[in-house]
Amino acid sequence: MAVSGPVTEVIRAAGDHVPGLLVRVEERLAELAAGHGVPLAEHAGATIAAGGKRLRPLLVFLAADEEDGEGLVRAATAVELVHSATLVHDDVLDAAALRRGVPTVVASAGRGAATATGDLLFARAFAELAENGRVDEIRVLSDASCALAEGELRQRADAWDAAVPVERYLARCELKTARLFEAACRLGALESGGEPDALGAFGRRIGLAFQLLDDVLDVSGPASRTGKHRGTDLLDGTVTLPYILARERDPGLAALDPRTIRDPETAERVCDRIEATGALDEARRRALEIVDDAKARLADGLPARQRMALELVANGVVARYA
Amino acid sequence: MAVSGPVTEVIRAAGDHVPGLLVRVEERLAELAAGHGVPLAEHAGATIAAGGKRLRPLLVFLAADEEDGEGLVRAATAVELVHSATLVHDDVLDAAALRRGVPTVVASAGRGAATATGDLLFARAFAELAENGRVDEIRVLSDASCALAEGELRQRADAWDAAVPVERYLARCELKTARLFEAACRLGALESGGEPDALGAFGRRIGLAFQLLDDVLDVSGPASRTGKHRGTDLLDGTVTLPYILARERDPGLAALDPRTIRDPETAERVCDRIEATGALDEARRRALEIVDDAKARLADGLPARQRMALELVANGVVARYA
Repeated sequence: MAVSGPVTEVIRAAGDHVPGLLVRVEERLAELAAGHGVPLAEHAGATIAAGGKRLRPLLVFLAADEEDGEGLVRAATAVELVHSATLVHDDVLDAAALRRGVPTVVASAGRGAATATGDLLFARAFAELAENGRVDEIRVLSDASCALAEGELRQRADAWDAAVPVERYLARCELKTARLFEAACRLGALESGGEPDALGAFGRRIGLAFQLLDDVLDVSGPASRTGKHRGTDLLDGTVTLPYILARERDPGLAALDPRTIRDPETAERVCDRIEATGALDEARRRALEIVDDAKARLADGLPARQRMALELVANGVVARYA
Repeated sequence: MAVSGPVTEVIRAAGDHVPGLLVRVEERLAELAAGHGVPLAEHAGATIAAGGKRLRPLLVFLAADEEDGEGLVRAATAVELVHSATLVHDDVLDAAALRRGVPTVVASAGRGAATATGDLLFARAFAELAENGRVDEIRVLSDASCALAEGELRQRADAWDAAVPVERYLARCELKTARLFEAACRLGALESGGEPDALGAFGRRIGLAFQLLDDVLDVSGPASRTGKHRGTDLLDGTVTLPYILARERDPGLAALDPRTIRDPETAERVCDRIEATGALDEARRRALEIVDDAKARLADGLPARQRMALELVANGVVARYA
């Protein structure tokens, strides 16, 4: 796992058992990649082994406080498998060549194998979670998975529509990102006998802030940090908060048809123009408010150590984009 | 539902409650299509409402004998949703324009929306089944879903490999088709307190025979019956039993590189040549043996009415291809 500074701090606060849990998730993911015959090992193995932040498994563990049983590892693995499935399918649609520095499934195996690999990761997530024998957990994961797909559909339905209102944008982010963060926290709470609603609400807010800040980063760059040029959302027709806010402030931008943004150079210029309106600062401010709200709502009854770890992970989401 | 002759006969044998159950599945599918906001109703609505044989829901009901509760309807709906999800994804990969006479999701909404729609149908299947509150049922569906995706991956891994052995072909058919038929029967048995293993084994054999006969039909046609020209598998690089058997009998076919089959006319000619070897009769004979085996293994303890209905559905699978 690529552990960044804030994550290390979170893990230290959460307790010595967390690094071990994260290692068990890696091992389980590697086992699953190896255990499904040649094709999965070959294709999905690279993608799931290549890591990523493992932020969702971390949330499962933090929401479970001191719990460290196999059920918790399975829940964290299942959430990460659902996340990986969506990444594999996203890469098919974008015909992306690389993810996390390794060739994508679609690049190495083609569209057909990549689509099936995503489906398999998705099915495997439910098979994994079913081993916990708890239908309440299955319900959490299936609801979040429905939300993910629905968010993707809404994003496509709203593509190129510069007049998307902020509420609609936020509702899409809830579906596409926040609900799986919520599910991670709920699963941790369910496995440890904690409070799924309270921790779920925390996760959902953190997820929403995460998506807002991700959308800011797409406009602000720098490319050296994101690994892609600025304005990919603009080129995709994905209308995000910075663009919505900037259009309210700059009549020239409001008059621009997003379909005319067709090459990276034009996209970069529109990014500069969005930034010039102060829309990025405003979007960041809103994300920070959501994070503050998430932290403020953490129940007083939580153990001090757990509370601190959750606050640190919330800060980490922000720090990534500072 | 498009009810063909043999299906009507099956329903008559199974009991008066079965048509009502099938109607409830249709209603539930329509509800689900309508209940997920504009995008799903628009895209998947057409595909799932367009029907199809509803053979898998029928198997759920027949395996459950006289049971007719809501849990059974949910199980049948879930199985059909998984099946629909795979069809939607298959259509994306084939860039198919029509399915069951209506425009495919990919044709009407594009690749991105179609991929997400398939994902949503898949997630919805688990959400639907979770309402039954039984993790044993979730396990059945997730295992079958893994098998489906794995079968798809194996098919792609083996594409254009004319030397695929029969055993490997059969194992792929088990994964890609038979396991979901098995799951349908298992779910019916679980909901009704029947015998999941015995009924599951029946379903699996019927599913295997179904796939074998489907592969025969791709070579035999006629196009007026299948709605597509003969030899689509050959053009896809999918090596099936008729082709494998024909290569053993005709050295000229054995010497042919399947990659040289590039247009429908060549594919038709290869189909004729496969047929001339008697391979289609041999493949049909093997499928009938599997069906006979399935029927012979139906436990003596089954109620006479249920047994007759299951035998009729087995015959229906064969009759479709007679």
